[in-house]
Formats: sequence, structure tokens, C-alpha cells
Amino acid sequence: MPLRKLLEKIRIVLIHTSHPGNIGAAARAMKTMGLTDLYLVSPKSFPDPQATAMASSAEDILSQAQVVDSLETAIADCHWVFGSSARHQRSLAWDLLEPRGCAETTVNLLNQSQSQSNEQSVSKQETRVAILFGRESSGLTNEELARCNQLVHIPANPDYSSLNIASAVQILAYECRLAARHAVEVADADTPESVESGSELVSTAELEAYLKHLEEAMISSGFLDPEKPRHLLTRLRRLYGRVGLTRSELNILRGMLVAFEKR
Amino acid sequence: MPLRKLLEKIRIVLIHTSHPGNIGAAARAMKTMGLTDLYLVSPKSFPDPQATAMASSAEDILSQAQVVDSLETAIADCHWVFGSSARHQRSLAWDLLEPRGCAETTVNLLNQSQSQSNEQSVSKQETRVAILFGRESSGLTNEELARCNQLVHIPANPDYSSLNIASAVQILAYECRLAARHAVEVADADTPESVESGSELVSTAELEAYLKHLEEAMISSGFLDPEKPRHLLTRLRRLYGRVGLTRSELNILRGMLVAFEKR
Repeated sequence: MPLRKLLEKIRIVLIHTSHPGNIGAAARAMKTMGLTDLYLVSPKSFPDPQATAMASSAEDILSQAQVVDSLETAIADCHWVFGSSARHQRSLAWDLLEPRGCAETTVNLLNQSQSQSNEQSVSKQETRVAILFGRESSGLTNEELARCNQLVHIPANPDYSSLNIASAVQILAYECRLAARHAVEVADADTPESVESGSELVSTAELEAYLKHLEEAMISSGFLDPEKPRHLLTRLRRLYGRVGLTRSELNILRGMLVAFEKR
Repeated sequence: MPLRKLLEKIRIVLIHTSHPGNIGAAARAMKTMGLTDLYLVSPKSFPDPQATAMASSAEDILSQAQVVDSLETAIADCHWVFGSSARHQRSLAWDLLEPRGCAETTVNLLNQSQSQSNEQSVSKQETRVAILFGRESSGLTNEELARCNQLVHIPANPDYSSLNIASAVQILAYECRLAARHAVEVADADTPESVESGSELVSTAELEAYLKHLEEAMISSGFLDPEKPRHLLTRLRRLYGRVGLTRSELNILRGMLVAFEKR
């Protein structure tokens, strides 16, 4: 895939941003690295003259930005979701990446899906990867983190690790550009790997539909008491989010669940 | 040399900065990565409330910043000078580096001089490396470039390569931190990670016991025909093997299966 195309499939999602200037600065940071896909979840003020001023000549990114009122909507068509986190999430079994690893994973995912759709010559939904950035003051909530497949942490001064949100976007976008450039250079010399059919990743929406189905089955079997959910769904979402479920795997899980229910 | 010490020997020099907010944002970017040494050559306005506001909690960097009226003074005690350049300097025979190479060179220079002064046990002037950033509008002049040992160019979108100056400082400081960390090989030995109970990985035997149980349930529900197993077990083994199942996750899966069977 050409460099430009790869970078356009990386979505930056800013959640509940308070300062419109940060939205503009983030748009500028994206554009300098070739990223174009910006989602804003319930920004405090947008559009806003401060955002436009800070965007400098990246107004096109702002005017194309999608404003939505839930994270779910922002990532529904994404196949892999990174959450940026200033804190080390020690207590959870997170697969914590740094920006370089995050960028390499992103580019690998995008390239894999591309070589699959080349082979099958089927028109299929395009793979997209999202990177989430939380509030300026407090980052992502636990509920938002639970929607992520992996976390990315920018290594920083432990005494002062609070990067401006646009600076954080800048570093991630920079690493994505380097990783994509490297992948394109390698591909110029290489033949693409053939990938087994059904091994493409499922979208967040497909996974959510399965979890919904599973929840109903857990409730009707008495395993899950809706009054005392014990974070069961969250933990299962984390488990399947972490593994990166393929379509054929989801088909097995779904088929199994239907069979258990029929019995 | 410890990480902190290495990073303190890297000087950021901002030349003729027009917008005081950029000085504050650059100070913040430096501090997040552990850099402390800031020189300002003839800033348009400094100190300035906008600088302080954008510095957030990095005011100490601003209050220690040296304001001088010539580049010569700013780099007099530096042993190596990088000039950041948005343009490819094609016409000049520059040794043009990217941020990663610039950071590696910087850390090598600082470490070399350290081991020399250890060996000679002579008190000598400490080695310092400077990275110069020019005006927001036009970068470094040819005369300023001529003062540099090497140029550093941040790879960017050729259609829009104009990074905000604080963003450029952020990327360079980030790469310096990574290079210094690598050089020091600070294993994160200070605090051993505490592991939440239940978050330890299950053994192969435990996973196999679960898969055996699942197989029986699949057969009795009619989902799996033992005569035509379709590699279902193998695929599930791959799925759960890939994710690295924790004990508490396996407990959920097991409990769910028992509940489905009872129904």
C-alpha cells in the first residue's frame, strides 16, 4: 500500500477535549505526518476560532473531522484500537506498548488486511486502526480503556510525564509515519505474504455483537446476575480485544454459543 | 552516566522566537522528556504570561532559561551543535540526520567525553550538545546554519511539513530520551511490578483441561462431530494460546461453560 494510503487509515480519536486550541494543534500535528482521519467525541467546543488558529494550514483536517457523541460510534468500523495512557497500568494485564511498537503493530495490521483483500479480490470493509486520546486533565476512563485492544504509553520523565495532548499526537503520528515509510520501502523489494482466508481481524462492532449475544446467554443460564455483573463483560471484552480475534475464530465462538443455547 | 545527567547536558536553543506561547510549550515538551537546559536568543517577548501559561508545570525550565542576544553566546560552551531544518538542504554538502540519528550521535558524544574524563581524572569542561530551532516563519538563516556541525531534519508530509516549533522540540527530546535510556540500559529495576492476584498466566495443562471440557460440551451439543472435527479444537487452542490466558479469565470461561451445560 502506498505511504499516503496507509497513513489515511489511521484514525486519531480525541475524547472530551476541553481546550479547542488543542484540537487545532492536534490536527496540525497529524497533517505534518500525513494523517487525515480525525474523530472528536463530545468536544467541549467545536468548531471554535481557537481550534482554527492553532491548526495553522491544517484546516482541511478540522473541516473533515467527525464529531460524535460516543466512543462506540467513533470506533465502530475500526479493527484495532489503541488507548494512549500516561500512567503505567500495572494492575491490569495490559499489553503495554511504546509509540514505536504501536506504530509497527498498526502498519502490520493495515498491510496484512491489504494483502488479504488483494488475494480474494472481494470488496470488503477496509481495515482501520484507531488511537484514542483522553481528556487533558485525566486521560481515558477505565470504561474507555476497556474498549482498547492495547495501550500505548509514551516514555517520559517520571517527575513530569504530562505531555500536551497535541504533543502526544505528534509523537504517535511521527512514529506511524516512520513505520509506514519503512514498510513501504521493504515492500518495494518483497513479495507480499499470502494470508489464509478468514484470518482478517473482526471489527469492534462485530465483537460487540458477539459479546451482547454472550451476555444474554450468560444471563439466561444464570451465570450472570444483571444486578451483580462482577465486570464479567469487561473482562471478556479485554480478553478478546487483547487477542485480536479473526473472523474464522469469531465464527467458531458464535457457532458454539448457538449450539449451547439450542440444547 | 545516569539518564538524568545525560539529558541535562542537551541544550535546546530557540532563536528569535516570535510567539511566547511557543517558548512555554517548548519548555513543557523538554521537561516531559527530562531536558532542562534552555537558551533563548533574542526572543520577541520573554518573560511573558503566554509563555508561563503554555509551560503548564514546567515553569522551572522557564525561570532557569538563559536569555542571550547572540547565537555565539548560546553555544560558546557546546561541543557539538545540531541545526534543525524543515527544508532538505540539498544545495549544501550537509550531513543530514533524522531525529533518531541525531539523538544517537548526541548520546554517544556525551558518553564518550564522560569516559575520557573518567580515564584522565582531569577536571575538564563538561561536554554539552546543542540543538538549534529557528524562527517560526523562516527557520535558521544560512549564517546560523554555518555554525552547526550537522543538520537534523524531521521527516514529514512533503505537502505540509511545517511542524509547530514546540512539536519539533518534543520529537527531538523524545528521541534523545529513548537514545539515552538505551545507552544507560536502565532496566526498570527500581520498582518490581506487583501482580494482581489471578493475573498470572495459566499453565498448558490447565488450558488443556479446559479445552477437553469444552470439547465434550461441543460434542454433546452437536456442534462438534467427532468424526469430522474440522480442526475446531486446534483453532481454539491457537486462540487461547495466543492471548496468554490469565487464571481469572480461565475461571470465567470455565464457570460460563458449567452454567451453559447445566441449563
